[in-house]
Amino acid sequence: MLIPVILSGGAGTRLWPVSREGHPKPFMKLADGESLLGKTYRRAAALHDKNGGKPKTILTVTHRDYYFMSRDELDQRDLNGEFLLEPFSRNTAAAIALAARYAIALHEPEAVLLILPADHLILDQAAFAQAVVQAGRLAQQGYMVTFGIKPNAPETGFGYIECGQLLGGEGAGYDVARFVEKPDLETAKGYVDSGRYLWNSGMFAFQAATFLQELSRHAPEVSLSVEQCWNHLASSAKDASFIEIPADIFAHVPDISVDYAVFEKSERVAVVPGDFGWSDIGSWNAVRDLLSPDENNNRSCGDVVLIDSSNTYVQSDGRLVAALGLDNVMVIDTPDALLVAHQDKAQDVKKVVAQIKKTNHEAYRLHRTVVRPWGSYTVLEEGPHHKIKRIEVKPGASLSLQLHHHRSEHWVVVSGMAKITCDGRETLIQANESSYIHAGQQHRLENPGILPCTMIEVQCGEYLGEDDIVRFDDKYGRSTGAL
Amino acid sequence: MLIPVILSGGAGTRLWPVSREGHPKPFMKLADGESLLGKTYRRAAALHDKNGGKPKTILTVTHRDYYFMSRDELDQRDLNGEFLLEPFSRNTAAAIALAARYAIALHEPEAVLLILPADHLILDQAAFAQAVVQAGRLAQQGYMVTFGIKPNAPETGFGYIECGQLLGGEGAGYDVARFVEKPDLETAKGYVDSGRYLWNSGMFAFQAATFLQELSRHAPEVSLSVEQCWNHLASSAKDASFIEIPADIFAHVPDISVDYAVFEKSERVAVVPGDFGWSDIGSWNAVRDLLSPDENNNRSCGDVVLIDSSNTYVQSDGRLVAALGLDNVMVIDTPDALLVAHQDKAQDVKKVVAQIKKTNHEAYRLHRTVVRPWGSYTVLEEGPHHKIKRIEVKPGASLSLQLHHHRSEHWVVVSGMAKITCDGRETLIQANESSYIHAGQQHRLENPGILPCTMIEVQCGEYLGEDDIVRFDDKYGRSTGAL
Repeated sequence: MLIPVILSGGAGTRLWPVSREGHPKPFMKLADGESLLGKTYRRAAALHDKNGGKPKTILTVTHRDYYFMSRDELDQRDLNGEFLLEPFSRNTAAAIALAARYAIALHEPEAVLLILPADHLILDQAAFAQAVVQAGRLAQQGYMVTFGIKPNAPETGFGYIECGQLLGGEGAGYDVARFVEKPDLETAKGYVDSGRYLWNSGMFAFQAATFLQELSRHAPEVSLSVEQCWNHLASSAKDASFIEIPADIFAHVPDISVDYAVFEKSERVAVVPGDFGWSDIGSWNAVRDLLSPDENNNRSCGDVVLIDSSNTYVQSDGRLVAALGLDNVMVIDTPDALLVAHQDKAQDVKKVVAQIKKTNHEAYRLHRTVVRPWGSYTVLEEGPHHKIKRIEVKPGASLSLQLHHHRSEHWVVVSGMAKITCDGRETLIQANESSYIHAGQQHRLENPGILPCTMIEVQCGEYLGEDDIVRFDDKYGRSTGAL
Repeated sequence: MLIPVILSGGAGTRLWPVSREGHPKPFMKLADGESLLGKTYRRAAALHDKNGGKPKTILTVTHRDYYFMSRDELDQRDLNGEFLLEPFSRNTAAAIALAARYAIALHEPEAVLLILPADHLILDQAAFAQAVVQAGRLAQQGYMVTFGIKPNAPETGFGYIECGQLLGGEGAGYDVARFVEKPDLETAKGYVDSGRYLWNSGMFAFQAATFLQELSRHAPEVSLSVEQCWNHLASSAKDASFIEIPADIFAHVPDISVDYAVFEKSERVAVVPGDFGWSDIGSWNAVRDLLSPDENNNRSCGDVVLIDSSNTYVQSDGRLVAALGLDNVMVIDTPDALLVAHQDKAQDVKKVVAQIKKTNHEAYRLHRTVVRPWGSYTVLEEGPHHKIKRIEVKPGASLSLQLHHHRSEHWVVVSGMAKITCDGRETLIQANESSYIHAGQQHRLENPGILPCTMIEVQCGEYLGEDDIVRFDDKYGRSTGAL
C-alpha cells in the first residue's frame, strides 16, 4: 500500500509578492494556471506501486489555515484525501512522524509513505513514477529511502548526498556514504564532476513502522512528544475528514528537520537516483526558467512590452508593463504590490518580505484577493467611508450568519444566483438585481445554484475593518473557534 | 497691458505612463499635487508690468479636448481666462498668430503678449517676474523678445541662442547673433564655456501688432491662413468664453514652429537672459531631480521599499513597490500601466508609447480615471457582464440626460448628495442610499449640493462599451456635437 504524504508548509518568501503568508508558495499558480500543490496532487494520484496499484488516498500535513484551500485543490481534481492539520509549523520530523502514526492507526504499519513537499515541480512524470516504484521496493525491504537528483549544475543552494555501494535486489538504489550540507561553489563543482553526488531533494519513502522505529532510536524526544499528541486526540477526532493537532501538546514537539533527526543518523538509509526534471522552484529565477526565452533572452508572461532589453523576466497580472533598456532585471507585478529586482538578488527577495513585515504592511500577508472556505473576495477599492468587494461564492456554499455594527452593505449580483437571509426573511436575487443589509441586521449570503455566484458589495460606514463581524452560525465551524 | 498666453499642446510621450494623450503632460501633477499647467497659471497671474499692473486675463491656446480640464485649473485658482480652442495641433506659429489676432480684436494692438508653454517649471518666481519686466520694456520698444536660459550643463536636447550686443535703454537684453540647433556634446561644451550662449526656452514676449507684422513679412502663408481663420469666425463666437477655431479653415494653416517661421528670420529679435530655475521637464530624469536623494542617491515617492539599490527613482501611485539590487533604474507606477526603464533611456520612453499605440492599447491614450466636464470617473473593474465605476460629480455639476440600450446601472452614493432623474421622476439620494436605472430608461445624475458627490456605479449588461449612450441634453454642449 502506497500513501503519498504531502508536506505543505513553508512561506516561500523568496517568491513574494505572489507567495504571501495568507496564500503561500504551494498555492502559487504557474503560467499554465495550475498551482504547485495542484500539480503535486495530480502527480501523486497518478503514481502506482510495483503491482500497478494506485494510491487510495493522499494524506496532507499542513497548517490549519490552509485546510480549505488545500481541500479545494483535491476537490477540483476529484481526488480523495485526508488531512493532518498543525496549529503551527514544527518542521519536517514532527510532520512526518504524525503522518506515520496516522498511517499505522488508520491504514497499516507496512504502508509505504511517499513524502512529497507540496511546492516542488517535476516535469517527467513517467521517470518519477519509475523512481517511486524502485523506492517502494527498497522501502518494503526496510530501507529509509531518499530521492537524490542527478545534478545538472554546481548548485550551492542544495544539500548533496554521496552515493555508496549499489544495493542488491530489484531496487536500483545505493547506500548513502554521507549527507553533506550546502557546499561552496568549488566544492559543488567537484561533486558534480565526480558523478557520485546527488542533490538532496527532500522527498522520501519508507514504511510507516520503520520510520517510527528509526525515529525513536535517533530522536526519541520527537518520537515521544508526537506519540503524546496522538494519544491526546479524542478517538472521534480520528475518524473525521481532517484531524486537528492540539496546540498545547504540539508546542512541546522539537522543531527539527527529518534530515537532522533521522536520515543523517540512520544506518538503514538508501538513495534512489532520479532524473525527472525536478525543481524546488526556490526563487523567481526558477519560475523564469520555465518559460522560453526570446532572441534577447527575455522571458515574459502577461501584457508586456519589452524594448532594448535583455536577460529580463517580466510577469504581469492584468496591467500593462513596459520594460525599457533593462538587463538582468526581474519585474513581478501583482494587483497591489510590485517587485523590481536584479536577477542576482533573487535569493534576497526574503529581505523585502522581512522589511515590509517589520513595518506591518499587509502586503507580506494578504493579497487583494482573499480565499475563504465558501469562495473568495477581492477588495476593489477602499475609501474613507466606503469599501468595494467582489465576492465569489461557490455553488452550494454559504457565508456565516453574521452581523456588522458599523457598516451597511449594498449587494448587486452580476452573475449566478444568491439566496439572502436578512433578519429571518429569505429572498433569491439574480444577476442585475440588488439587495441591502442595514448595519445591525443579521444576515447570510448563500449560493443555492449550480453555477458560481459573483456579487459586488459596496460597504458604507464609519468603520470598515474586517473585525466588525459577529458570527452566529457557520457551516465551516468558524463561529465556534474551530477552523 | 500684459497678456500671458499659455500654449498648451504637446503630448509629453516621454512622461508616459503618467502623461497620456487624454491627460497629457500639462495636467501631470508633481509630488506637491499641483499640475504643471496649474503652476503655469499661478505663475502667470502673479506677474506684473513695469508699473506693477497685474494681467487682467490669461489667454490659453489649446486643443478643444482639453478645454474643461484647463478651465478647471483656472477655476481652482479663482483666475479669469480666455480660450482659443484648436481642432488639432498646428505647431506654435499658428497658435501664437491666433493669439495675437485675438488680442488685437478683443484687447489692444499694443498689448504685450507673454508666450509661456504650459508644461515648463520655474522655481524662482521673483527672478522670472523681473525678466518678464525687462522683456516687456523691450517689447514696447518694438522688439521680438525671446527668453534665453543661462546653461548650467552642456545639454544636447535644447537649441542655443548666441548673444550679440547689449541693447541700450532700460531693458537688460541682447541682440541675437544667431539661433543654433541642438548641438552635439562637444559643441555644447564649447557654448557653455564661451559664456555667450543661452538655452532657447520657447518663451517669448512681443506686442501683438509687432508679431503679426513680422509674421506677414517672414511667413506670409501662415499670416494669411490665420487671418482667414479669424475672419471665418462668426462675430458672436468672438464674444464667447472660448473661441473654437473651425477645422476646415485651420487645416490650411502651415504646420511650422514660431522659431522657424519668424524668430530665426526677423531682425527685431532680442534675447533676455534668465536664471530662474527653469526646466522643461523633458523626461522622467527631470522629474526625479526635483526630489532629494537618499544616501545611496535613490529618490522615491509613494509606498516604496528600497533595498541594496542606488541611483534609482521609484514613483508609486497607491501600490507597494519594492526595488531590490537596482542601479540606475526608474520605476514609474500607475494604476493600470507600469514603466521600468534604465535611466539612460529616459528619452526613449516615447518608443514605448509608439509601440503600444501601434498595438492600439488603450494605455497610450486613457488613464483608469477619465476627466469629464462634470467631474471624473474611474473604472474599478471590468468583467464579462459587469463594470464598476467610481463617479465623482462636482458641486452643481450635471451629467447629460442620457439612455443606454444594453446596460442597467446600480448606483450607490457613498458621499455627498445626488439628484437622480429617471423617466421624468426626480429623487434625492444621499450617502448609503442607492438607486437603479434600467436599460432603456432616460436618466440624469446631478450634484445639487455644495460638497462633491461620490457614487459607485455597478453596470450590468451584455454590452458595456462607452459608446452605448444616447445623449438628449447636455449643459456642456456635448449632445449637439459642440464640445
